[in-house]
Amino acid sequence: MPRHLELVYGTHSVRAVLLTRPSAVKRVVILDGRKDDTARHTRWTEEYVELTRVAAVVPQIVPWREFLRLTGLRESDKHQGICIFVEPRRLYDESDFDELAACNLVVALDQISNPHNLGTILRTSAFFGVGAVLLLRDRAADITPEVLRVASGGAEFVKVYRITNLSRSLRTLSDNGHWIYGLDERGSMAIGESDFQARSVIVVGAEGGGLRRLTKESCDFLVRIPGGRQGVESLNAAVAASIALAAIRSPRSLDSGRGKVAAQLGQGET
Amino acid sequence: MPRHLELVYGTHSVRAVLLTRPSAVKRVVILDGRKDDTARHTRWTEEYVELTRVAAVVPQIVPWREFLRLTGLRESDKHQGICIFVEPRRLYDESDFDELAACNLVVALDQISNPHNLGTILRTSAFFGVGAVLLLRDRAADITPEVLRVASGGAEFVKVYRITNLSRSLRTLSDNGHWIYGLDERGSMAIGESDFQARSVIVVGAEGGGLRRLTKESCDFLVRIPGGRQGVESLNAAVAASIALAAIRSPRSLDSGRGKVAAQLGQGET
Repeated sequence: MPRHLELVYGTHSVRAVLLTRPSAVKRVVILDGRKDDTARHTRWTEEYVELTRVAAVVPQIVPWREFLRLTGLRESDKHQGICIFVEPRRLYDESDFDELAACNLVVALDQISNPHNLGTILRTSAFFGVGAVLLLRDRAADITPEVLRVASGGAEFVKVYRITNLSRSLRTLSDNGHWIYGLDERGSMAIGESDFQARSVIVVGAEGGGLRRLTKESCDFLVRIPGGRQGVESLNAAVAASIALAAIRSPRSLDSGRGKVAAQLGQGET
Repeated sequence: MPRHLELVYGTHSVRAVLLTRPSAVKRVVILDGRKDDTARHTRWTEEYVELTRVAAVVPQIVPWREFLRLTGLRESDKHQGICIFVEPRRLYDESDFDELAACNLVVALDQISNPHNLGTILRTSAFFGVGAVLLLRDRAADITPEVLRVASGGAEFVKVYRITNLSRSLRTLSDNGHWIYGLDERGSMAIGESDFQARSVIVVGAEGGGLRRLTKESCDFLVRIPGGRQGVESLNAAVAASIALAAIRSPRSLDSGRGKVAAQLGQGET
């Protein structure tokens, strides 16, 4: 394929691209299930053709071997029989920091190197309405086709920033009115006790190592997720990020938590 | 290796086995980093030897190729240079349901087939003190070495039940005093509004399909995680399970939520 095009596969990821930017789709390859012995595969093929009609390119409907050859995918890739070649999504960098002002909720990743974790964080971020995800340019997973597949379409709804210096970026966000919450096993505040502000940045550390010292120092608060035991001291990085985002978005945490207590006691929230 | 032995690799998983049942370890294979050019690898090797001292078997310290040959692992497996052969953990089934009475928090999986998700759920379950995880005998991921590695030791602290009929198992749990909460996108109750009981079962549906009809009918409550948008309607199954467990274990959800409001208003919780 032309080097600048991006491979997107799996129904969820493909659907998200067709929803958000159908004109970016340059090629559609669909596994031909019509010659298969099950009605199920036939139905899938027809659904895929229908789904990709918005893309204004004629889909190539091909048998199994040809599908793998044209897409370069392996049998073990979870492609579900659909693959598209698209103009890459726009990537953002420090020069686009102005646009972060419009994002209430931002996720910043400190050296997340596992593609599965990065994909999961993008999916969860899209689910909870995160505006942007900050990713280190070096020492971090790249936005690969596998990441996009795990993200299940999530990457289409979140601005992905590649940055060179995380603590400097956090300071910029802080100066512009965001509050910076770092997830840290030894944080002084438990997640259930945290009153997250409307404009928040959640900072997630690397698998294993956690937040680096300079990153920690750039946080306004270090927040821990209570739990753990000897032998299982920490959560998976993507799981920790997801729990934090859910806590911010949960009605109890924002509306039914201290705000509600205060309201019922006749006091304004301070 | 003898067929009945289980392969466990990666530092976290190995450490958990050595913590909980060192006598089950029959063989220890460590990658020889001492001939490597970095002091880092040498330190690792020495740490691993120290770590496995409790196992009462002499570790085999071998170079790279020999390590892969002895363990049968591939380069891409995240073994971190340490691998043990152990007697398998005990697996539970319906005949052991009596022991569930001692578990306040139980997770039941409805057809989770992705090994990564199963491993993540075991890790999160151990972190949040879940007593048992129920897994379908058919149509579910098995407890493979990969699952154990993703679980990062979590599988050692949770009783894993292989069951044949989920809705029947849920009824038994219900009869014995557990409350059954199913995670469902269209649940009538948002997770932040749910008052989870001390003895709870969280039921998690398959990637894609969610809970089956009979499973739903066996739940006392269907709980949804608020969020989502067209294109990203759902969360990863392991993420959804983790958010639910965090909500149950969060101090706000249990202590600082309605209970605390009631206490401050001078009312008992009903």
